[in-house]
Amino acid sequence: VRRLRDVGEHAWVARLVHRLAMDVGGGVHIGPGDDAAVVRPGRASLVLTVDALVEGVHFRTGWLTPAALGRRLFGVTVSDVAAMGATPRWALLATESPAETASGVLDGIVRGFARGARGAGTRLVGGNVTTGPHLALTATVVGEIDRTPVSRAGGRPGDALYVTGALGMAGIAVRQLAGGRGGRLPQPPLRVRAGRLLAAVASAMIDVSDGLVQDIGHLCRASRVAAEVELDRLPVAPRCRRALGAAASRFAATAGEDYELVLAVRPAREAALRRIVPRLGCRLTRIGRLVAGRPAVRVIDAAGTPITLARSGFDHFRR
Amino acid sequence: VRRLRDVGEHAWVARLVHRLAMDVGGGVHIGPGDDAAVVRPGRASLVLTVDALVEGVHFRTGWLTPAALGRRLFGVTVSDVAAMGATPRWALLATESPAETASGVLDGIVRGFARGARGAGTRLVGGNVTTGPHLALTATVVGEIDRTPVSRAGGRPGDALYVTGALGMAGIAVRQLAGGRGGRLPQPPLRVRAGRLLAAVASAMIDVSDGLVQDIGHLCRASRVAAEVELDRLPVAPRCRRALGAAASRFAATAGEDYELVLAVRPAREAALRRIVPRLGCRLTRIGRLVAGRPAVRVIDAAGTPITLARSGFDHFRR
Repeated sequence: VRRLRDVGEHAWVARLVHRLAMDVGGGVHIGPGDDAAVVRPGRASLVLTVDALVEGVHFRTGWLTPAALGRRLFGVTVSDVAAMGATPRWALLATESPAETASGVLDGIVRGFARGARGAGTRLVGGNVTTGPHLALTATVVGEIDRTPVSRAGGRPGDALYVTGALGMAGIAVRQLAGGRGGRLPQPPLRVRAGRLLAAVASAMIDVSDGLVQDIGHLCRASRVAAEVELDRLPVAPRCRRALGAAASRFAATAGEDYELVLAVRPAREAALRRIVPRLGCRLTRIGRLVAGRPAVRVIDAAGTPITLARSGFDHFRR
Repeated sequence: VRRLRDVGEHAWVARLVHRLAMDVGGGVHIGPGDDAAVVRPGRASLVLTVDALVEGVHFRTGWLTPAALGRRLFGVTVSDVAAMGATPRWALLATESPAETASGVLDGIVRGFARGARGAGTRLVGGNVTTGPHLALTATVVGEIDRTPVSRAGGRPGDALYVTGALGMAGIAVRQLAGGRGGRLPQPPLRVRAGRLLAAVASAMIDVSDGLVQDIGHLCRASRVAAEVELDRLPVAPRCRRALGAAASRFAATAGEDYELVLAVRPAREAALRRIVPRLGCRLTRIGRLVAGRPAVRVIDAAGTPITLARSGFDHFRR
């Protein structure tokens, strides 16, 4: 096995740059290998976001192949661009890894990231490498949007709450992997197309990264409204349902890592939403509504009785 | 002391977002606190770069105050934008830190970064936080350029080589700090204005991050030329000269972390260069020239005799 130490930083970067240089076009004027990348935007606004995956925090060695890890990093990062209704265009990848790492591992991460990006119309245009005590990956994605971006702040009392896809699949996989019961960490669903379409009707939108209830809470605080979420309406992933039975909905409400989109829709836009749904490429489920009141998320059963959950989602500083 | 664990991720982010929300304008449509930042570029091309500072690799605890560390991170990252001749506009800051970190440390880092950025006309528009075993900071800077960017690839045989400012000051500080002899790590010089002015006359440009000889080597490979650098011409920082005497030039040639700019200038552009120098805000020193030949950097004395150096610069995977 050739370690990064054997290859050397500059030789590794030079090889990578040579490989990525094949990949021209897409508004890229100067790609990887110079001081900085140069790209040519259209007349749109730019959407900028950064996210990270850290070994021992977001994943453990052996949970994913290097390529799957790179693909996952792109997926979790682009999710924020999708949640604005924007189109991802360019990406940067910064890695921290021990010098003892097999150079094929870093190669695989970059390959998986670049392929995932390419599949979503995004070019990897630059990055950075440094050593460190463990593997930590940070990605920047720059998107374009030529309409008003959908922030978290546009929700109003009376808006309906919808969620794309299904919840709880990644959470249950993490639980099984962390418990040593094997399995595979599913890839984020890449709701880029859905986000762009839903931006035409959504009053507010956010992606589910840290847990549905907690992320709806972020939307509520930004919009200065409260939310009611009906637990029995949540679209629970079959894998989660099989594993947890009757407890699956509660788990799916807070597990996080789903990277689905949650959106608020005004009553007057419901008809327009129904016309869009067939083109989303995924399910869309009504799970509740926004109501007047102090920012808070009330989880209720079908009869409207409040349900208390042990947690609302993930806090990086408190685990 | 309040630890990040006591404050909680979301409370810490909410407080920060509130503080940064005061800072509007500057082409920022949606700043920190939403899924992603939204900015409005002009009709220019965009310059994208990312860089990182990792505890135990780039600095050790106690070498800098948190604010100085944040300021330093901005300085090392914006240096790549300056080396393209571009104007830095927007920045993202991603942090990895133990939950036991005092929350004031992360506050200080963000404050130092945002202030440093502001001083260079750049807005901090977003970021990410995660836990991790140590402090690791990753910054993205997005710049604009409405002229042809100065890449590393435009050098030709016959071009003169110049360097801004002075070399060896950061390197000697790192050596003294690492040896337990105290001192202060100097801040990168922020050659943003100089870079923009020099872009009008430079055929190729790069910043000195890993070591002058090694970074000129990068320029040579991109431009497919060789370089001759006269060791006695290097502008050695007084602090480095005092510490090392006659050995100072050799040290300054490879120590790195200077974040000065190295540029190649065609003979026909020398007159234009001389008119620019008074406005640079720093010295500019002619240190050698580009020559035909396989990409390599020949370090020579005043008589043209080759000098062999033990190393050319820093390699992250080989130390």
